[in-house]
Amino acid sequence: MATKLKGQTVNFYTPPQISGHSSVMGPEEGQGPLGNKFDLTYKDPKCGKSSWEKGEKQMVSDAVGLSLDKAGVSADKIDFMLGGDLLDQIVTANYIARDFSVAFLGLYGACSTMIEGLCMSSFLLDGGFADKVLAFSSSHYQTAERQYRTPLEYGDQYPPYKQWTVTGSGSYVLEKSGGDVWITHCTVGKVMDLGIKDANNMGAAMAPAAADTIMQHFIDISRGPQDYDLIVTGDLGRTGKDILAELLRENNMNIKNKIQDCGDILLPDEKKYGAGGSGCAASAGVLSAHYIPEISSGNIGRILFLGTGSLMNPVMLQQKESIPGISHAVVIERIS
Amino acid sequence: MATKLKGQTVNFYTPPQISGHSSVMGPEEGQGPLGNKFDLTYKDPKCGKSSWEKGEKQMVSDAVGLSLDKAGVSADKIDFMLGGDLLDQIVTANYIARDFSVAFLGLYGACSTMIEGLCMSSFLLDGGFADKVLAFSSSHYQTAERQYRTPLEYGDQYPPYKQWTVTGSGSYVLEKSGGDVWITHCTVGKVMDLGIKDANNMGAAMAPAAADTIMQHFIDISRGPQDYDLIVTGDLGRTGKDILAELLRENNMNIKNKIQDCGDILLPDEKKYGAGGSGCAASAGVLSAHYIPEISSGNIGRILFLGTGSLMNPVMLQQKESIPGISHAVVIERIS
Repeated sequence: MATKLKGQTVNFYTPPQISGHSSVMGPEEGQGPLGNKFDLTYKDPKCGKSSWEKGEKQMVSDAVGLSLDKAGVSADKIDFMLGGDLLDQIVTANYIARDFSVAFLGLYGACSTMIEGLCMSSFLLDGGFADKVLAFSSSHYQTAERQYRTPLEYGDQYPPYKQWTVTGSGSYVLEKSGGDVWITHCTVGKVMDLGIKDANNMGAAMAPAAADTIMQHFIDISRGPQDYDLIVTGDLGRTGKDILAELLRENNMNIKNKIQDCGDILLPDEKKYGAGGSGCAASAGVLSAHYIPEISSGNIGRILFLGTGSLMNPVMLQQKESIPGISHAVVIERIS
Repeated sequence: MATKLKGQTVNFYTPPQISGHSSVMGPEEGQGPLGNKFDLTYKDPKCGKSSWEKGEKQMVSDAVGLSLDKAGVSADKIDFMLGGDLLDQIVTANYIARDFSVAFLGLYGACSTMIEGLCMSSFLLDGGFADKVLAFSSSHYQTAERQYRTPLEYGDQYPPYKQWTVTGSGSYVLEKSGGDVWITHCTVGKVMDLGIKDANNMGAAMAPAAADTIMQHFIDISRGPQDYDLIVTGDLGRTGKDILAELLRENNMNIKNKIQDCGDILLPDEKKYGAGGSGCAASAGVLSAHYIPEISSGNIGRILFLGTGSLMNPVMLQQKESIPGISHAVVIERIS
């Protein structure tokens, strides 16, 4: 069999179809401009449970269930589940997988994890290893802030480039048929590092990786910006989105108007949320709630959708290391 | 294309070959009975660097380089790198990937990560997505203990069932040809939880997952213990190995003599290491240094090799949660 890979980009012979997808989000997200597009929103970030971590797990549990319902697939028909999140040891994903009697593959790509999961799911389907795969991811403001930065009770000040970790989850069922959008290509990203050491400035840490993956994607399959209606990033935020546009402009791609960012449109209030949303749930939730419906209905054609991960670790920051970034991309379009 | 999956087990049409593999280990491991089999051992767990974390990274860097050298492949010919480790945000793997201009997929399966990586690498090769894939993993006593349990300076007491996190790394180059052993099947495990809450008793947390994956593997492809010369687990240790044998016996499989555990044979001194070694490097290092050479030379025939992961998270233990386990398996045999 000839390889389906060119450079870092795979062209799927049988593009996997998204047969069910869902978004379950927290209170801030529910009050934002996309609020009425989510399948379910919680006003309480604990979802009535005894801890924030258990609240995050509840949102994922709801999202997984909703995506299965929408696909009309019962959990015991799923061949593989793939998941990951921002918490140490991807603990949310592991405890969710415990509730299902399904083969599980744990992933970590920071905020790029949802798109890493869609890439891997597509490999499993197109490679002939599965008929039905489920991929999910989540993030949560309260669980992430205390782990990565400072306890919330400290009342940390917000620089304008800081982002707000999105609370919520997205889940996707992928099959060989049954959807009205499919994933035709994926580009797996490289780890990039331009020396950012400020844990609040993740947009700057991730933008070079996004720029690299976009340019690599175009080279690999001889396409350009003109072949896409939109180029959507997961959670660069407003600062990172501007840096991405500038990096692409330096490479003779003046496409600022074609770039959208999930974290930007999800939490636009700069006073409260700084540069916008970040976290796995930014891409996971907004792709399901906003972009896929727009593609399904024909309002948007083909998009290049990028997960963007800031591979930050507090211990390494204490050791004066910088923060690398990674970005994986999928091409999503309506099945013609 | 018909699915290659039965239950949780994939039968590869073109079994991926291991063309290069390496082990780089720390001081305790170097002094043990397998000491002279490793490619490289360090007497200093920092490897002369300024921190334990940087020492762990150095061992992985050496292991990756050695596996490439042995395969006769330069890094720029690798289509995908896959890696993960025990540290929060799999930070060792991310910083290693930063040093290479190669598409990277981050994995987390606790101590099962090396075998998760071999499974995923095999999917990429057999699915036609790649010609050459590199998978690596690592663990490190000093970096893991302070993250998961108590700072080493506290002088924590060792119960007999406690294990010693193995310091080291293993790296594997997989290709369509070029090796003398190959991976014919893999079985992806489910997350299992029998209620263990003691972070020192990981063998007991992982044994049910290993038993489940072994039995599932036999059911899926209509094989039994008689089809394998050995069933090898990654890091159940002596306590977990005994529990596994008992769980299998309860299911009418009296195969205690056929089971070996990497953590057990790696660190046999019970006074110093309790129930034996644990950590990603137990399976990653011993598979490369001991089992693959034995298979290559014909001393051992076909083995079922299981990575075993205890999906422990300190925050969830504080919230009185129990520790789930997972186990992934690969079938390795000499190319006939």
